[in-house]
Amino acid sequence: MAKVSHREKILSEGLRLVHERGFSGASVRDIVQAAGVPQGSFTNHFASKEAFGLEILDLYFATSRDRIRATLYNDALPPLQRLADFIEANKAALNRDGMKNGCLLGNFSAEVVESSEAIRHRLMAIFAEVQAGVAYCLKAAAKAGLLRADMNCEDVAGFIVSSLQGAILLAKTERDPAPVDRFKRVLFEVVLR
Amino acid sequence: MAKVSHREKILSEGLRLVHERGFSGASVRDIVQAAGVPQGSFTNHFASKEAFGLEILDLYFATSRDRIRATLYNDALPPLQRLADFIEANKAALNRDGMKNGCLLGNFSAEVVESSEAIRHRLMAIFAEVQAGVAYCLKAAAKAGLLRADMNCEDVAGFIVSSLQGAILLAKTERDPAPVDRFKRVLFEVVLR
Repeated sequence: MAKVSHREKILSEGLRLVHERGFSGASVRDIVQAAGVPQGSFTNHFASKEAFGLEILDLYFATSRDRIRATLYNDALPPLQRLADFIEANKAALNRDGMKNGCLLGNFSAEVVESSEAIRHRLMAIFAEVQAGVAYCLKAAAKAGLLRADMNCEDVAGFIVSSLQGAILLAKTERDPAPVDRFKRVLFEVVLR
Repeated sequence: MAKVSHREKILSEGLRLVHERGFSGASVRDIVQAAGVPQGSFTNHFASKEAFGLEILDLYFATSRDRIRATLYNDALPPLQRLADFIEANKAALNRDGMKNGCLLGNFSAEVVESSEAIRHRLMAIFAEVQAGVAYCLKAAAKAGLLRADMNCEDVAGFIVSSLQGAILLAKTERDPAPVDRFKRVLFEVVLR
């Protein structure tokens, strides 16, 4: 029971710390201290820092996946409204800390993929999953005649996923959601009209 | 003379190493070792790792600035051709290492802005400079009647700068320039048509 509790603490405090300081910037020592558990606890529960990194990535994306289901796959709403809701939901989540920490997916893409093939492949699978959700919406919009008939929905969905990451990156640098608002504005007023 | 040489070696090898491993991932010890200079050399030449970070950022962007001048401000070419050339020039530069290291501007945005206000402000100035170059091209294109009359060139330029960063981030994760190619394709076939 105590062991499970230590593991959970390391994951939740570790995710918070890595999101804030970066994967290299948050040492195992920092993480166990923040979690308030003995140093040896980390190695009891995780084979390596990379294994820990994969777990916090999954923990982080579990929340994003809930947002994807609640917005992009919410068939009760018009498809482009769902896409707008998805962007707003991401912005609201990231803006809890004034955009300061950015998106863990983007942070790991920038910082961790060079040194971990396992994390790199997990990120690719995650981005593909987000892209599938956006493409699902765009195809519904195309079917409803809301998009230009010649639009390649898969291509544009991939473009939207990467462009949203870029907007979040600049919002992190500016500590201001303005780049995400601009992304959304140009997306709906220019790209998807 | 020897001191100047050490400084240059630390900057060029340090830039290479930080671009590859990240700012936290490349320690001062790693950097002086790669530069083949004594450990004390670093502190002789740089007041802090942050001061060194600002210098390699400027060193990196000096090359990007040359690319901006040679493409976006090349008035001899049609404006949208210049924008296409700019994207290709960035892709070619990043693809020298198979997209593996990404763009230092994006990497620093993801990893370093939380811990350094000086680097965060420098990055904001750099992104603004890139955006000004893209806006210069778009305004020329608008003047030539190549864009929709109601297009907000500043807004779309900012969108292009952040979206290109996002495409580079995904290309780094995939170790494949495909996301940058997709960004360019959607930009010219959908956004700017």
